[in-house]
Formats: sequence, C-alpha cells, structure tokens
Amino acid sequence: MGKRIVVIGAVACGPKAASRAKRLMPEAEITLIDKDDLISYGGCGIPYYVSGDIPDENQLRETSFHMLRDEHYFRNAKGLNVLTKTQATDIDRERKVVKVKCLDSGKQDEIPYDNLVLATGSTPFMPPIPGRDLDGVFAISNLHKAIEIKSRLARGEVERVVVIGAGPIGLEMAEAFSDLWGVETTVLEYFDQVLPRLVDPPLARMVEHHLREKGVKVVLNARIKEIRGKDGKVTEVVEENGIYPADLVLFATGVRPNTELAQKAGLLVSPLTRGIVVNDRLQTSDPAIYAGGDCVEIPHLVLGKRVVMPLGSLANREGRVIGDNLAGRPTKFPGTVGAFIMKCFDLAIGACGISLSVARAEGFDAIYALNNQTERAHYYPEADFIFVELVVDRVTRRVLGFQAVGPKTDGTLARIHAISSILPHRPTVEDLIGLELAYAPPFNSALDPIHDVAHTAENILTGLLVQIDWEEVLRRLREGDPNTVFVDTRHPKEAEPLVKKYPGRWIHVEYDKVRANLDKIPRDKDIILICNSSRRAYEAQRWLMAAGYKNTYVPPGGLNFLRRWGVEL
Amino acid sequence: MGKRIVVIGAVACGPKAASRAKRLMPEAEITLIDKDDLISYGGCGIPYYVSGDIPDENQLRETSFHMLRDEHYFRNAKGLNVLTKTQATDIDRERKVVKVKCLDSGKQDEIPYDNLVLATGSTPFMPPIPGRDLDGVFAISNLHKAIEIKSRLARGEVERVVVIGAGPIGLEMAEAFSDLWGVETTVLEYFDQVLPRLVDPPLARMVEHHLREKGVKVVLNARIKEIRGKDGKVTEVVEENGIYPADLVLFATGVRPNTELAQKAGLLVSPLTRGIVVNDRLQTSDPAIYAGGDCVEIPHLVLGKRVVMPLGSLANREGRVIGDNLAGRPTKFPGTVGAFIMKCFDLAIGACGISLSVARAEGFDAIYALNNQTERAHYYPEADFIFVELVVDRVTRRVLGFQAVGPKTDGTLARIHAISSILPHRPTVEDLIGLELAYAPPFNSALDPIHDVAHTAENILTGLLVQIDWEEVLRRLREGDPNTVFVDTRHPKEAEPLVKKYPGRWIHVEYDKVRANLDKIPRDKDIILICNSSRRAYEAQRWLMAAGYKNTYVPPGGLNFLRRWGVEL
Repeated sequence: MGKRIVVIGAVACGPKAASRAKRLMPEAEITLIDKDDLISYGGCGIPYYVSGDIPDENQLRETSFHMLRDEHYFRNAKGLNVLTKTQATDIDRERKVVKVKCLDSGKQDEIPYDNLVLATGSTPFMPPIPGRDLDGVFAISNLHKAIEIKSRLARGEVERVVVIGAGPIGLEMAEAFSDLWGVETTVLEYFDQVLPRLVDPPLARMVEHHLREKGVKVVLNARIKEIRGKDGKVTEVVEENGIYPADLVLFATGVRPNTELAQKAGLLVSPLTRGIVVNDRLQTSDPAIYAGGDCVEIPHLVLGKRVVMPLGSLANREGRVIGDNLAGRPTKFPGTVGAFIMKCFDLAIGACGISLSVARAEGFDAIYALNNQTERAHYYPEADFIFVELVVDRVTRRVLGFQAVGPKTDGTLARIHAISSILPHRPTVEDLIGLELAYAPPFNSALDPIHDVAHTAENILTGLLVQIDWEEVLRRLREGDPNTVFVDTRHPKEAEPLVKKYPGRWIHVEYDKVRANLDKIPRDKDIILICNSSRRAYEAQRWLMAAGYKNTYVPPGGLNFLRRWGVEL
Repeated sequence: MGKRIVVIGAVACGPKAASRAKRLMPEAEITLIDKDDLISYGGCGIPYYVSGDIPDENQLRETSFHMLRDEHYFRNAKGLNVLTKTQATDIDRERKVVKVKCLDSGKQDEIPYDNLVLATGSTPFMPPIPGRDLDGVFAISNLHKAIEIKSRLARGEVERVVVIGAGPIGLEMAEAFSDLWGVETTVLEYFDQVLPRLVDPPLARMVEHHLREKGVKVVLNARIKEIRGKDGKVTEVVEENGIYPADLVLFATGVRPNTELAQKAGLLVSPLTRGIVVNDRLQTSDPAIYAGGDCVEIPHLVLGKRVVMPLGSLANREGRVIGDNLAGRPTKFPGTVGAFIMKCFDLAIGACGISLSVARAEGFDAIYALNNQTERAHYYPEADFIFVELVVDRVTRRVLGFQAVGPKTDGTLARIHAISSILPHRPTVEDLIGLELAYAPPFNSALDPIHDVAHTAENILTGLLVQIDWEEVLRRLREGDPNTVFVDTRHPKEAEPLVKKYPGRWIHVEYDKVRANLDKIPRDKDIILICNSSRRAYEAQRWLMAAGYKNTYVPPGGLNFLRRWGVEL
C-alpha cells in the first residue's frame, strides 16, 4: 500500500497538492476533504461572475477543457478520495489521524495519515460593527455567497450597495455592482486613500478619480458607526459624517487565516501574522504536516519578514511545492514579492515589492520616482499612458517596490512581470537600467517605462534631479507663495492659460529656449519647473543648475499626474 | 573649456550618448555628426509609416511632446553642435582629430576631440543577386528610402511586391504592403521557416500559416537566381522554382555593421562578428574612443560569446552608458539576451535567449517544451491562446531561451519581459517555476503560461512526461504505422471524427476514464496520447506508466498547435 495522505481544504492549494502528489506517487492513497460541496473554484473570478461577465458559476469550476471540477472529477480524473461537506474537527498527531464529521449526517469518523496537508484557507474579517449580522450584509467567504449576491441582483432587489473597504476585492466588486448592474455604489474606506498600503497616493488618487468618473462614490477616512436595518434587513450604513442607504452591504476588509485546527493540534501559529508557521518546504512545526495557501505565513523577500499573503497565484504554486515534498522531492517555496494586478473599470493597476508608505513605516530610508509615458511608441496609433512609481532604498539603491497604473491592456502586467521576476535577486536601480526589455513600436518604446523611471530614480539619487512633492507645489501655487516662480517649459499655447491666471508667478520659457532666456528666470526665488511629464522640466533644471541657480525644483511625473487626479490648476 | 567630444552617427545611440553626456557635463563641447539630414528618427517605426498607420514621416522624428528632433532641436534643447550632411572620412588617433567632409559643399575640415564616439550603425546587407541595382529594388537603409517606397505606393505604382527575407523586418514590411495598401505580397525566404534562428518551427509555422491566411504568399527554401527588369525598372524575381512579378522588391536580408571608419583608424574589429570590439564600458581598443549601437559586438549572456545585435532598444541603452562613461561615471553595459518582439498582423511574436536550433548548433544538449493556454483566466470573456516554447539545457537545467506567439495584445510582451529580465541571472527551470507572476482573471491565470511550460520542461527532464515530436506523430498517422495506436483523451464528440477516420488506430478513452479502461489500450503497441493542450494526455500518460505501460508518448503542446499550423488530421 502507498503512503496515506490527507489534504484538508479543496479550493486552490489543496487540490493542487493532492493532484501533484498523486501524479508523482500513483500508489499513494490521497484523501481530499472540504466542508463545502463547491470545491476547486476560481475564487478570484467571483467579481466577474457577480458582474455577469461570466454568466454561470460553473464556469469558475470548470477546467479549461470544460470539465466540472467536482468530487467526481477529482475521483475519476485525479484518482483522489474526496469527502465534501466534511469538516475536519481535530488532528491527533500522536496517532496520526484526522477526526472528521459529515455535515449532512453528523456522522463522525477518523482518517489515518502518514502526511497531512492543511490548506484551510482564510475567512473574511468583518470588524465588529453593530448590525453586521443583518440580512443583506455580506462578505465573500465562498462561492455560495457570490451566488446569493448575484441572485439578489438578478431579482432586482438591489438598488444601492455600500462596499466597506477599498482594497482590490472591494474595488473589483464595486465595479461589478456599478458597471454591469447599474447599481448605485458607494465605497467606504477607513484610510485616506484607495488601495492603502498596496499603492501610494500618486497612483491611488488616479484610481479614486477614475472610480468617481465611472459613477462610484468613494468616501475616504470613513468611520462606520453602525449598520441599520428594518425587519432584520439592512437599510443603511451610518458613518461619522453621513448616512448611506443600502439594500446590500459588502465587507471587503481583508481576511484572516483559518488556523483553529492547526492551533488545536498544537502546531506553531504566529501571533504576529496569525498564519501557520512553515519552513521553506512548507512543513509546519510537525514535519509530517504541511500547510499552504491563505492559512500560512511566508517570507516576504523585500520586507525581510514573514507575512500572510492571500493570493490565488501563491496558493497554487505552494500546492505544487507541497505535492513535490510529499513525494520526497525537496522542492522549496522561495517566498513572496507581493506581485499583484487588478482591473478597475478601464484601468489596470499592478504592484510588487513594497510601497513607499510601507517602506517608510518599516524603517527603510526610501525615495520614490514617478514616470508617465505611452505604453507603446508615442507615435504609434492609440498609444495610451502608463503611470509608474519606483520605490528605492536611498543608501543601498536597492529596488523596494514598483507600481503601475495603465489602460486595461496587458501593458501593466508586462512591467509588473519584469520587476516581480527580478525582485528576488535584490536589484538596484542600476540593475533596472540594465534590464533588457523587448521593443517594437506596437508594444513598447525603445526605452521601457521601467528604464525611464529607473533613470529618474538614479538622477534623484545622484542629485542631478531635485524634486518637490506635488502637495507642496499645489500649496505654494494656491497660497500665492511670493518666493516661488513657476516656469512652464511647454509649448506657448499649453502654458498660456496659466500664465494669464497667475501673472508674474507662472511664466513661460520654452524648454529649448531656457539657456537663451536666463534673464527671465529670477535667481533669488524658488523655481518650480513645469511640463507634462517632467522630462523637459528635468532638462531645464540641468541648464539652470549649470548656470548657478540654487533653488530649482521639479514636481514628480509632471502635469499628466494632476490631470489624472482631476486636479485643475 | 570643457571636454571636447565628437559623436559620429545621429540616429539612436549617438544622440543619446551626446545628450546624456551634455546633461552630466554642461560645460563639455559636444559635436554630433551625421552624413544624413534626417537624424534621430524611430527607425523601428518605418513599417508603420510605410503602411500608413503613421501618416507623416515627421512623426517618427518627433519627441513625445511633438518637437521635431532636427539639428536645431539638438542645438537649442540639448546644447550640442550638430553637423548634418557631414561625412566623417578619417580618424587621426595620434592627433585626436576627426576629418570631415561637408556633403553639400565638399568642404573638408578637422574636428579635435578628447573623446570620440562611434555610433555609425549598420547597412542592410544585400546578397549579390544580379539585378539588385534595378530601379524599384530597395533595402531600408534610412528614412529617405522609406519615404520613397511610400510615395510609390501612394502614387499607385506598386501592385506586386516581393520581399526577400522572412526575418522581423521582412515580415513587418510584408504586412505594411499587404494589409494597408492591398498590394499582392510575396515573401521569399532562403531557410525552411520564417523567422529563422529567432523562433523554432513550432511557433514559426503558426506565423507562416497566419501570413498565408492574411493573403501573403510565403515561399520557403527560396533560391533566388536573378532580378529582372525592363527599361531599368524591376519587373520580376526569378527563383529556382518560380517567377514572381514585382513592381517593387525589398531586401530584408539582415544588416552589416558600419566599421570602415573604425578599421581605417586601426581599431579592433572582430573578423567573426564584423562588429567593433568594445569592453563592458563600451570603449574600443583605443580608450579615448567609445562605440555603441548596431556597429559593435556585445556579449550574449546566454550564448557565452560576442554577437552583433542590431536592436534599437540596445542602441539607446548603450548610448546612455557611453554618456555616463564620457562624464567619468564607470557605468557598464551588461550584454544582451536578445529580447525581441514584433507584430505580424493579428499576432504578437516574441523571444529571448536562444532558440532550440541555435542552442543545438552551438553545442548545447538542449530540450524544448511547448505549452498553450489562454492569456487570461480561461473563463474570462474573449480569452485567446498564447503559445510558448521553452528551451532548456538538459544537464544543468538552465533556461536557454523562451519564445511566444499570442494575440496582438501585450500578453506576449509580458512573458518576454519576465524571462528577459531574469535571463542574466542564469535561471534554471526550477527558478522559472518559482517566479512570482501577478494574477487576476482579466490578465492571467493563477499559474502563468511561463509556469506551465516550466512544469512541462521539468516533467520532461525528470522523465514524468515522455514526448514525441509532431513530425514523427504525423508520419506514423499518415503512413498507417501498424505498431502505433492513438488514444484520444478528449470529449467523445471531439474525438469522434478521427475515431471514424482511422478505425482501430485512433481510439477514444476519455481522460478521466483511462484507469477504468486499461483493457482498451493495448500494451504491446506504441501509445500516442492526444488532447488539445497535452495536459490531459500527460495525466493519462502518468496513469499508463503507473499501470506498467512502457511505450507511451505525448506530442508536445497538443492539437491546438496543429490547428494553428493549418494541419488537418
């Protein structure tokens, strides 16, 4: 008889581990257990199922060749024993048995194992707000919830939705409600930006503006007091400064690893991350037990500490590593760099590594550089802009993170793919400058946006480029700071309206005429150099610094950023 | 007075080197020389200008903010001395002067330098075929030639074009002629595939089929004898097996580095690659002289030897490295991994590293793996297929190359970006399996096509998957090999036509029923396992091997490849 393996959890990591192990050890006896009857579904596809882009929930459960991944599939095609609607209640590590309970019959049983795999996933975290138990208040903990939400939408019961949390799932769901069902949608976010910690304000503000353009109401710094209902059904969400009527409320406030089983069994669970502790072969503190997916903590290769990173891509890769190890192949899981991408209406948003806010909170002495340029050659038809931010450690010049917001093509994915692939090698800014990135006009510029933002970062680090934050620029402009002059280096026509609006303070000296017009640019004031992308402003700054100017500044990324924030000068 | 720098060549590398050096050393006196009057243009955009996608040639010469990059621009905006229509005729290294001749006036002059930069580019190579001097026979050596070709198209003088060479430029130009001008276009290629050396036959055959579907005639193994004309104008191209009428013939048969000047000056030029020899700071054998762009040889980081790689992306990056070094910053150019991408009608084609054919020709013991899967989650609307090939060294498991053909989204770019970024770190197959690649259903699957093809490669290397080449599969099927049985593991309906067509030899056992139907699958024959992507076939092979079957084989990548080759079974 082959090895006996029990896998608890059958959504992403579990089935992958079980199937891989069985392919490597056809003689093994592998049992896959899940408390649900809907298993092995594409959870990340739920927003597109709710929106209607994907008509049938079974599409999330099918293989690419349209076989439904139900218990029969795993039995017949994969050769696994499958127990659905079965709860694992206890692990007896001494006797190496898992105690299970059939949720339909209530019958209890024991399953012996040589190796056990915990792929118990995570559960949405719902902050203890009064009223969160009302009918119509949801968190997407499984496919059933998604089906229920979609039924309510389809029955026309939902006219107004409040989404709590502006993280990726909150925003994806907001789009699903608003875009395809035309539901009045409000997103309430505790922090002062959307996608907090994931992307920094320069890009987050673009996403926020885009959401508003698309008719989604976004409330930042929201402090929710209560969810109110009538006859047990939700009617409104009460926030400190406003009341938001709602037929449906969705919590998208993060998840917590499911570790009760592990804890009861005495396995090491981190009090800091709440994740099950595993080594790089994904073994728990009991070498006979492996764990993977949303329930474990893994090393963050940039942060240098362990994190819980509930991403479907990691869960699948971890499943394969576990499958290998179960079969005696000592494969390692290297850790994460937090590669992430999402669609938000017409935008793609991606990131990897850590954001500037996280970097500074973690004690890095970090700087940032912004860039915007067309995704493909600027002369190629319909080339749209991609906006990127690079986060770099000032002293070591190590790349800490990268973020991008572009049109919903795959151009953003391309840049995230490049950086996330190289991040484990601890690249410096100079390494990014040296990256070889394919070019042809329909797909890219000769220098990729990655090169350009790395050049900017290097120029900042070496003092060639001196920046000033946009908040400070806007403050000085609006307060009429008498010691600052804005020099617009663009075409005369572009500059004209602002020259008229801010006489004496906003002057025009075109980029290629700077050297010949130094007399127009005062030496005793702060000079803020303006153009659309900050390329011309940077070159103008080089000329001014060469001419002995002391206080010249370039706002990062240029006016194109302001436009995407919906800010008018 | 600042350093005196002379830069010869003002298309890509030259202007970049000069502009960067001037930004770093505003006091330097930098002279940019070119024999042409059209300088600093996006040469890679020429096919899209000829096609009409880009209406005006000046668009190829403009900055992203619509300033024409002519001599005035480089003087005013960049602070360079610019001499156009000026030929550098000699370098006197003793006296450190460049001898120049004004092509308009014939006037000769000398320009002293402290540092010299050779960015002399390359010239199209035209094989010595009789008739290549006829009117109407072109090679795109500069923007003037492109303008002339487009004028002829616009004047309606061109009804039939023959393109000689099916490399990237040949195919891009074939598309320009055929797609937008409706010109009858024939591509003659010496080798037995399109894009020889760049991509291997599995992907090249797809491109070839696509070209034919789009109405382009493709002739492989072409042996051109002569180009014939009438009254000095081209009329037809005579090939060994056919005569192709043509009003316009375009040579796209590669380029040769322009090194006459360097050779005359006694600089080291490689007799092997024909490129100017430079160190990793891009210094020639004379430390006062730098060189970059199409005219130099650079290290190929996978091949382990030096190559000439005439790519606009490299030329730009080399220009910046030279600019740094001129200013005393010891920046290095790391070499190339040959990252390449192109559009061909509705396809994107990309590659990096080396192809299987090159790897084997260079003595590597290389294997290959194919994969096809949807670019985004298979359940996401309009998810189209991407086809990839991975080339791996059998012994070290080192990744040697990667190729992809997908729809003309940026999905192909994304995968090339990931691999080209990591290739300098000499990744193994296991490193690719460990890559973190961002996932959300609108952009990717939980496991990227890179992961999947790396899994396949690993399974081949460890003997879990046993492949058989498609040529052999097709031979056995067509010749009715009595010792081979084809087992179709797909849905019954998919298999039915072939089961009928090849009775007894093509049998159907669905993927999830293999274990229960071993009696149907003979043990004394070669079993070739069939499905669309070879995923099910691989799993079926695992079951058969576990059941003791000795001779089971899976054709790489599945039937989806055959379909894209236009092959009917």
